[in-house]
Amino acid sequence: MPSRTTSSTSPIPGDGEAVCVRRHVERFNLGTNVLDEDWIASEIPVALHYNGQAHVVMMATPMDLEDFALGFSLSEAIIESADECRSIVVYQRLEGIEIGVRIPDIRAETIAQRQRNLSGRSSCGLCGTQQLEDVVRHPAPVGEGPVVPGATLHRALAALDAAQPLNSRTGATHAAAWSDLGGNLVLVREDVGRHNALDKLIGAMVARSTPLQEGFLVLTSRASYEMVQKAATFGISLVVAISAPTSLAIHLAESTGVTLVGFARATSHVVYTHPQRIGHSGS
Amino acid sequence: MPSRTTSSTSPIPGDGEAVCVRRHVERFNLGTNVLDEDWIASEIPVALHYNGQAHVVMMATPMDLEDFALGFSLSEAIIESADECRSIVVYQRLEGIEIGVRIPDIRAETIAQRQRNLSGRSSCGLCGTQQLEDVVRHPAPVGEGPVVPGATLHRALAALDAAQPLNSRTGATHAAAWSDLGGNLVLVREDVGRHNALDKLIGAMVARSTPLQEGFLVLTSRASYEMVQKAATFGISLVVAISAPTSLAIHLAESTGVTLVGFARATSHVVYTHPQRIGHSGS
Repeated sequence: MPSRTTSSTSPIPGDGEAVCVRRHVERFNLGTNVLDEDWIASEIPVALHYNGQAHVVMMATPMDLEDFALGFSLSEAIIESADECRSIVVYQRLEGIEIGVRIPDIRAETIAQRQRNLSGRSSCGLCGTQQLEDVVRHPAPVGEGPVVPGATLHRALAALDAAQPLNSRTGATHAAAWSDLGGNLVLVREDVGRHNALDKLIGAMVARSTPLQEGFLVLTSRASYEMVQKAATFGISLVVAISAPTSLAIHLAESTGVTLVGFARATSHVVYTHPQRIGHSGS
Repeated sequence: MPSRTTSSTSPIPGDGEAVCVRRHVERFNLGTNVLDEDWIASEIPVALHYNGQAHVVMMATPMDLEDFALGFSLSEAIIESADECRSIVVYQRLEGIEIGVRIPDIRAETIAQRQRNLSGRSSCGLCGTQQLEDVVRHPAPVGEGPVVPGATLHRALAALDAAQPLNSRTGATHAAAWSDLGGNLVLVREDVGRHNALDKLIGAMVARSTPLQEGFLVLTSRASYEMVQKAATFGISLVVAISAPTSLAIHLAESTGVTLVGFARATSHVVYTHPQRIGHSGS
């Protein structure tokens, strides 16, 4: 069990926080002002500790936190395989949620060493990055991966709205989804942060041994550098985003062999890299 | 001039990077696949150095970088007033852009002290935050601020799309805008990151001595905790976002006296906190 760095209540086995809350609001529409109630997505500080050492705090939606911890550990290359994640314990703290992750000592030492090299100062924005030289982490090229007809992408996209219950209620969350080769969304994770949603999905896929060869990633967000980096680190070969990619995301997708699709909707899409994985027949 | 921590080329006076680039893509729409070209928003690592010390790296759109550095310094409470920002120099590096900011020694020492307290390890996600206890920074309550009719919000929202040239071209960027009390957008800043867009706007407002009493903030994004925190730290009393707020954003807006409006469109909006600043007449 990870050591505790703050006074603690007992660990919570599941998700102890409400994922959304009701609130009185004033709603104005077409000339009429009414007092109403609205559902608000919860956002809460979540701290990740490795082997008892504080590593990072992120704002996240308090659900699927074990998936989150496992997925983050993999997508940020803190561990090399899921079995290096020995245990995950979620604690409710006064200030938020703390997740204690137990990993092999050599991995924890690597994080600590990497951080000592940052001259003893803190940083933010890009996980543990303070110097320009440290930003660009190049994942290994992804595998061949499946070829997916455009029509299959569109089926998955058409199913996306109905697969986001938290967003349907609050309008405040992003989702990362895994589609099978029939265009069926077999796993979906939601979070106020798009990086977190992807980490939760990756953790959930690992926990269920979802085969990477038998599907593709669907994102409700833009495809920025860090999204492609996380997906490529995990070995995903096809990333489909409903909004735009950035220049650096395209560059990374190109060099790691990821097929990057943007502006994906129920009847249209744009392929930015490695188009050989998108089949044209039947689309 | 700030000391340099990497081998450098010469400082660039303006913005040396292209803010968007052309790329060949495959565009599929309603059964037809065509080779086409697309505009892609640039995303580049930008490092902020204070008095020669590396502080943070963020992914950002390479324009309005002086505004960005000044706004970040204020919205993250690194300096207390704009005149504490003695100089800003932008350098083009091999790996990205470095911005050297010169601030009073006592402010730089405060950053360094804060970071030493983090046990010599690095962190990320929330600027310099590694422990749950460090997350919640409470800005002072904002001033009274103007009362704005709902119709004025709607005028500003109706003008928002046309005021985002980079997003019109790429579909990949967020904007933060300042509207005057007539609903005219007098300043707009765009970036691939919504926090960056807000920091750029704040920096631009300071550089132009834009009076806080004579307008309100308009965001193309959701209103998350950090967006409200930055706005409140700068003293903005009315924040209008086109998408949803999160629970912690509402909590912070409540406690700092900020009027938080979400789901704001050309004919509708929802008021989450301090509704007394939204006038009902003529809306």
